[in-house]
Amino acid sequence: MTAPDAPAGGTDAGARGPHFVQSLERGLNVIRAFDASTPELTLSEVAHATGLTRAAARRFLLTLADLGYVRSDGRRFSLTPRVLRLGYAYLSSLSLPEVAEPHLEGLVALVHESSSVSVLDGDDIVYVARIPTSRIMTVAISVGTRFPAYATSMGRVLLAALPEPELDERLDRAAHRPLTGRTATDPAVLRREINRVRKQGWSLVDQELEDGLRSIAAPIRDATGTVVAAANVSAASSRTPAARMRRELLPLLLDATARIEADLRAARC
Amino acid sequence: MTAPDAPAGGTDAGARGPHFVQSLERGLNVIRAFDASTPELTLSEVAHATGLTRAAARRFLLTLADLGYVRSDGRRFSLTPRVLRLGYAYLSSLSLPEVAEPHLEGLVALVHESSSVSVLDGDDIVYVARIPTSRIMTVAISVGTRFPAYATSMGRVLLAALPEPELDERLDRAAHRPLTGRTATDPAVLRREINRVRKQGWSLVDQELEDGLRSIAAPIRDATGTVVAAANVSAASSRTPAARMRRELLPLLLDATARIEADLRAARC
Repeated sequence: MTAPDAPAGGTDAGARGPHFVQSLERGLNVIRAFDASTPELTLSEVAHATGLTRAAARRFLLTLADLGYVRSDGRRFSLTPRVLRLGYAYLSSLSLPEVAEPHLEGLVALVHESSSVSVLDGDDIVYVARIPTSRIMTVAISVGTRFPAYATSMGRVLLAALPEPELDERLDRAAHRPLTGRTATDPAVLRREINRVRKQGWSLVDQELEDGLRSIAAPIRDATGTVVAAANVSAASSRTPAARMRRELLPLLLDATARIEADLRAARC
Repeated sequence: MTAPDAPAGGTDAGARGPHFVQSLERGLNVIRAFDASTPELTLSEVAHATGLTRAAARRFLLTLADLGYVRSDGRRFSLTPRVLRLGYAYLSSLSLPEVAEPHLEGLVALVHESSSVSVLDGDDIVYVARIPTSRIMTVAISVGTRFPAYATSMGRVLLAALPEPELDERLDRAAHRPLTGRTATDPAVLRREINRVRKQGWSLVDQELEDGLRSIAAPIRDATGTVVAAANVSAASSRTPAARMRRELLPLLLDATARIEADLRAARC
């Protein structure tokens, strides 16, 4: 799920300019070495994952343990809930989820499908708010989850809002893997699709991220008219034909994003 | 919302042992300087909030900007969604939310009230999973939100699971502020309440965190019998009398936590 990430990795401080604090980069990379597939790591595994020496990895792990971000049973290390304070600093500094949530809840109550808000981070979209339906069969996605922008309706809405040279650069740079048999990966095809999204003001992605999943998205603009996020409604393709998404869900989604935008304008006054 | 937090702050490296990487502590404190009330900070404000010199604050901010965690318009700095990767490393390394969510969704569909899972971090509880109802009037709480443990039903369940000396220490140490007219703040009263929670195996907190809000919680134990989290159902007091919470919601909550525990045991095999 982690996207290509040029800035992180084994860059040396020299390439970064004299201000660069390499210890901070290394410590953050130690935190990011832990994930769903490796929730517990030994000292050697952390050293291997981060490219640090064992001695350096040990210093960073013990520092993180002193600060309460990491715990250890003596041999294996894992992250603690204190790490959420770091991501939460971002989420709590963002007024958008708070403004959007009541409107998305209204939308979910009407359409009985899940709704989310995401922002662009490099080549990924990142969920910053999500309202699941109370259906038991729901897609398990939480805040912080990321997906490649090119294969998602919210991603295409956010890409469509980029200035032309930046969009070109991203379409050229990103590796577009087929995630299902339907994923558009050809930069020319993606470019045509994003031009269409620009014109129509919304995006429908049909099983390009995951088989059986359709999603329709629209932009959210701040008081200055800048696209700051995208909101979507997603549904099982077995339950909701694409035509119904356009005909019934899209007007309700556009109504919700308009209300969110009105609240964002009001919040600014 | 931030709890007293001994490890962070202006401790000097000497007090920490020779392994301590002070730059990492300082860099993490710069990230945490941003929050809901201060989403954008100038260099001087970051220096003030972290106790760093302007020159040091500038080095950390520019390093975080190089790594993509911070952006700037030249004068004001703010966090980027990349920061979520740090907290997400913890969430994605935790199998509990994934295991718990389908059971909580089943519970929410039955009781039409919100349900959450939290863990203890110092004197706070931190939400790691949350299933809101699709009612429009819902309590806006997301993953990463924290509340003081002593005033919440999940917090009392988690405190009740601590070894005796650790519980004593926490009750003595934490400042217990009244959050509503009903909040228990006297350590002796809290201790009696926590003893009761230990015996009965669940906790009901009635408008001690927030006026108009009732919550009932039960522990979640891992395969070794250790309490690793708590799950709750919360409801508007105007809608749901305390007696109904005990009589109708508690058996369904205990059924959901038993299913989560069974899945945690199965996941371990």
